[in-house]
Amino acid sequence: MNDIDYESIKGIANQLRIHSIAATTAAGSGHPTSCLSAADLVAALFFGHMRYDPKNPHYYNNDRFILSKGHAAPLLYAAWAETGLFPAEDLLKLRQLGSELEGHPTPRLPFVDVATGSLGQGLSIGVGMALCARLDNLDYRTYVLLGDGECAEGAVWEAASLAGFHHLNNLIAVVDVNRLGQSQPTMLGHDLNAYRKRFEAFGWRTEEIDGHDLDEILEVLAAVGLGHQPLVILAKTLKGGGVSFLQDKEGWHGKPLSKEEAARAMVELQPMARSGIGHAIPAPNQLPAPKNEAPASYPATAYKPGDLVATREAYGNALVRIGGADARVVAMDGDTKNSTFADKFNKKFPDRFTECFIAEQSMVGVAAGFATRGKVPFASSFACFLARAYDQIRVAGISMANLKLVGSHVGVSIGEDGPSQMGLEDLAMMRAIVGSTVLYASDAVCAEKLVEQMAAHKGICYLRTSRPKTAVLYKNDEAFPIGGAKVLRQSAEDKVTVVAAGVTLYEALKAADALKSQGIGITVIDAYSIKPLAREVIKAAAKKTRNLVVTVEDHYLEGGLGDAVAGELSADGIQVHKLAVRELPRSGKSEELLARYHIDASAISNKVKALV
Amino acid sequence: MNDIDYESIKGIANQLRIHSIAATTAAGSGHPTSCLSAADLVAALFFGHMRYDPKNPHYYNNDRFILSKGHAAPLLYAAWAETGLFPAEDLLKLRQLGSELEGHPTPRLPFVDVATGSLGQGLSIGVGMALCARLDNLDYRTYVLLGDGECAEGAVWEAASLAGFHHLNNLIAVVDVNRLGQSQPTMLGHDLNAYRKRFEAFGWRTEEIDGHDLDEILEVLAAVGLGHQPLVILAKTLKGGGVSFLQDKEGWHGKPLSKEEAARAMVELQPMARSGIGHAIPAPNQLPAPKNEAPASYPATAYKPGDLVATREAYGNALVRIGGADARVVAMDGDTKNSTFADKFNKKFPDRFTECFIAEQSMVGVAAGFATRGKVPFASSFACFLARAYDQIRVAGISMANLKLVGSHVGVSIGEDGPSQMGLEDLAMMRAIVGSTVLYASDAVCAEKLVEQMAAHKGICYLRTSRPKTAVLYKNDEAFPIGGAKVLRQSAEDKVTVVAAGVTLYEALKAADALKSQGIGITVIDAYSIKPLAREVIKAAAKKTRNLVVTVEDHYLEGGLGDAVAGELSADGIQVHKLAVRELPRSGKSEELLARYHIDASAISNKVKALV
Repeated sequence: MNDIDYESIKGIANQLRIHSIAATTAAGSGHPTSCLSAADLVAALFFGHMRYDPKNPHYYNNDRFILSKGHAAPLLYAAWAETGLFPAEDLLKLRQLGSELEGHPTPRLPFVDVATGSLGQGLSIGVGMALCARLDNLDYRTYVLLGDGECAEGAVWEAASLAGFHHLNNLIAVVDVNRLGQSQPTMLGHDLNAYRKRFEAFGWRTEEIDGHDLDEILEVLAAVGLGHQPLVILAKTLKGGGVSFLQDKEGWHGKPLSKEEAARAMVELQPMARSGIGHAIPAPNQLPAPKNEAPASYPATAYKPGDLVATREAYGNALVRIGGADARVVAMDGDTKNSTFADKFNKKFPDRFTECFIAEQSMVGVAAGFATRGKVPFASSFACFLARAYDQIRVAGISMANLKLVGSHVGVSIGEDGPSQMGLEDLAMMRAIVGSTVLYASDAVCAEKLVEQMAAHKGICYLRTSRPKTAVLYKNDEAFPIGGAKVLRQSAEDKVTVVAAGVTLYEALKAADALKSQGIGITVIDAYSIKPLAREVIKAAAKKTRNLVVTVEDHYLEGGLGDAVAGELSADGIQVHKLAVRELPRSGKSEELLARYHIDASAISNKVKALV
Repeated sequence: MNDIDYESIKGIANQLRIHSIAATTAAGSGHPTSCLSAADLVAALFFGHMRYDPKNPHYYNNDRFILSKGHAAPLLYAAWAETGLFPAEDLLKLRQLGSELEGHPTPRLPFVDVATGSLGQGLSIGVGMALCARLDNLDYRTYVLLGDGECAEGAVWEAASLAGFHHLNNLIAVVDVNRLGQSQPTMLGHDLNAYRKRFEAFGWRTEEIDGHDLDEILEVLAAVGLGHQPLVILAKTLKGGGVSFLQDKEGWHGKPLSKEEAARAMVELQPMARSGIGHAIPAPNQLPAPKNEAPASYPATAYKPGDLVATREAYGNALVRIGGADARVVAMDGDTKNSTFADKFNKKFPDRFTECFIAEQSMVGVAAGFATRGKVPFASSFACFLARAYDQIRVAGISMANLKLVGSHVGVSIGEDGPSQMGLEDLAMMRAIVGSTVLYASDAVCAEKLVEQMAAHKGICYLRTSRPKTAVLYKNDEAFPIGGAKVLRQSAEDKVTVVAAGVTLYEALKAADALKSQGIGITVIDAYSIKPLAREVIKAAAKKTRNLVVTVEDHYLEGGLGDAVAGELSADGIQVHKLAVRELPRSGKSEELLARYHIDASAISNKVKALV
């Protein structure tokens, strides 16, 4: 990096400002001043420091860049246009329906690994990428540009803590401290020292600079990678920096300039602007690409019908089984690994396991980071605690991330620990994630096969596992394709179709036996795939039982299995009667609670009898 | 506090240990070693320091205590039993279905303000209580006992930051640094200095002590309230502390002792145990109780039919309008107040507004804290960002908190900012909260009246507001009771019932006009109350339209209005056809996106025609 032409980079920085203003003015919306504060930082990173192939943004050893302050999207787009990746004229299509240059970055663009725009999420994803670089023996570095306002998000400090703990000196955070938030000044304003103390306390090396002084910026960047700590560059900047009538002024957040204002800004910026210089620092290419191919097959499972195995334990068994055949599989947990049984994988493949401690947001971010690098990350916790990371999961949906989530300890069947530990809204939460697959295993064979399906299926998948031991129902060669269901009991005289999954499937089978002895036949379906739902299987069964369906689930009444079945099948005239948890549950024994909240065999029998 | 008998407190601490072990052994589950580490701290707080009326845990000026490490519930229960509030024999009913001494604390118990057990949430609630003490000119203090493991949660640092910013010297955090998490040692182990640096960097006064040395504990407690910072007491403890074969040993998390082990522990503990001393430090009683009564009425709204007003702006207007009449109303926002229009309240009643910066978890915790003190807190952000606080909202449900949440910028109708800013899963998320009320205003009058309903209704309420301006539909004297719906168009020949809310209601009305001109009548219903749903209103209308219902919503397909209607009415033979956002949306103009994702008037017309 001896040949850096400071004047050229200064010129590009102004060109990025010009692009950012022009694009947002053309769009009539956007955040130009949030771009301007970071323009010098981005120019220095993209044109004077980072090593990458601008023709191939996905190259495996490119330095990575995450724009955590996603509202500065026009700046990112401008930088890539200036590398030569696409024509600068396209920047004027910003925010138009036909353009992939959206209001906030999404991976529809080849140079964007993860969607940003919900603040505070970028750093944990960067931690995942940096950990993955170590795992893959690659020497790319990961850069995360944060806004100062987003440093109020706890997720930033979860990520900072984990990065410090792992001494990730291949991770660099740059904080654009422009002092002004959306609606008022930030909590810490320009007090760089306050930020410094926080990052140092979390184990980081810190540098304080003037974020508009390219000498200072390039100097601290030249020392990236030194030492054994992650580095944060705290850059004092001015929001709207570089334009006299914008900079450091309140009231400009998220506002485009009028054409006249834009013209005035151009007059200030153009004399120092330069374009067409391109990018000259190649990606390091001495290290081989990681092998991230799916295996042809996995070893078989070996359960015996009737064996008592909790699906959460089967999850741990499956991770170990497929992990041996599939080097892409990595796992992480939030200090519940002895309960989720992710610990089995940790013991077998410690290098591929990340303990994220009690920090679920960070855990999901780390997993999403691994996913961007071609891994298949399985992140587990109690189902209810995944709610802590719901915004991260939501944004992973927008990222179309290849993320695998596993929630254990669902429903009242966990028993005595009480409602704070019961996952009772996880199906609702996960069904509403765009592009998600939602799975719910009843027995160990099904759980193991669903883990295989999750590894093979690209996208966000969620597996719901249970605390109690349940009897193995299926043979080891049974297949469980996503979108399927199993009809476990069916006869010509059946009066009602009962759809269940997890612990309630066993209650439905018990109810079927009890009802049969009373001369009432019911069809019982294991709906192990909640989304996509096996609508044709359920519909066909329901048509044979006078369109009558009873759903029974260890979940609240809203948004779970019952709503899924009703929402998909009511248009076909299927009548869905829901059994679910309808009130705030209490501590008690598992079986007591299934009875009290009317989702046990007796409740199913009573419901069926009421319908017959 | 001159009369503290150190020996007595030491004796009580051991009695609390004995109770904790006995109760968990009787229950056969629980976390005795997590109780033992904090026993000396709790004994000192409850019997040597905190000021409260043990006969009246709800007394307005009692010092507050939050057990953020909720799994140490048996210790909390033991302390209150020792104050004399209830018989110590009851402790042996721990975790039984008939007992309110549940696995983790809930406000079913009079001495519990908020449910805990999902870690990292207590401190932000404490911040809310401490801020409320200031607002109410009361001198109670708020104590929060945290585990060390939960300090990995970002929510802790959001709360710490806000407490430091507000110089809350009436807030005291005590961290039980017992070194051991659930599945392995914590990230920081016994490194008190690391915790000290973190809290100091976030603006706290810190004290490091031996958490088993009562002299040290009582000495630092004696200096509570000094200075202008919140105080954190970092207490080095041993998990299982006080019992030789438990203390500082791995593998004991969440495990009760066997009867034999319990007997051995008792032999060690009983010689120093004391009971029946009770509590002697009264609550401060020189200050008057706050007036937290609901007003008899609120001023009327004054909109004109056809006025264009965004429901988010009507929310801001409503807050100001009812805030003038109702001193209970407080508000908070996460640096979006100029977009949610909470800023209107901030400008009018700055003392009753808390800017929580970009930290939604903290915001919801602060609101829940205010709610425990008799206030009616309205917390607002973009709907999608409330997902960041979903676990806090979930636990607020368990707390039966009187919390009001308002999410703006819902759905694709926000336009160009793109999917990261679109609330498209908020209805699913909020419907699944136990005991929640979910409201969705279409016009300004409805929005204002629903804010009144929220203030009057005890429990968690969520109001969904939209970004675009919409025409006022209703007269100022229209009533909008929770659980209601409005039939806006209906005639005898209607073929289909269309159920909508928010921006899609206007699309449905447009479709009704267009279809009418083609000789097709439709019933149009404004389902402003999503939960509880006006099922009888919708059912009655549907019965008149051959049981055919079309729902249309600016929300994903899963868990929203369509699932609500189908889930409630399919059992009655109503056939529900859902129009909703079915894929990851893009940036674009609001009307372009409504069309592209098939939730506009044209899509409704096409669906109706396909059904006719």
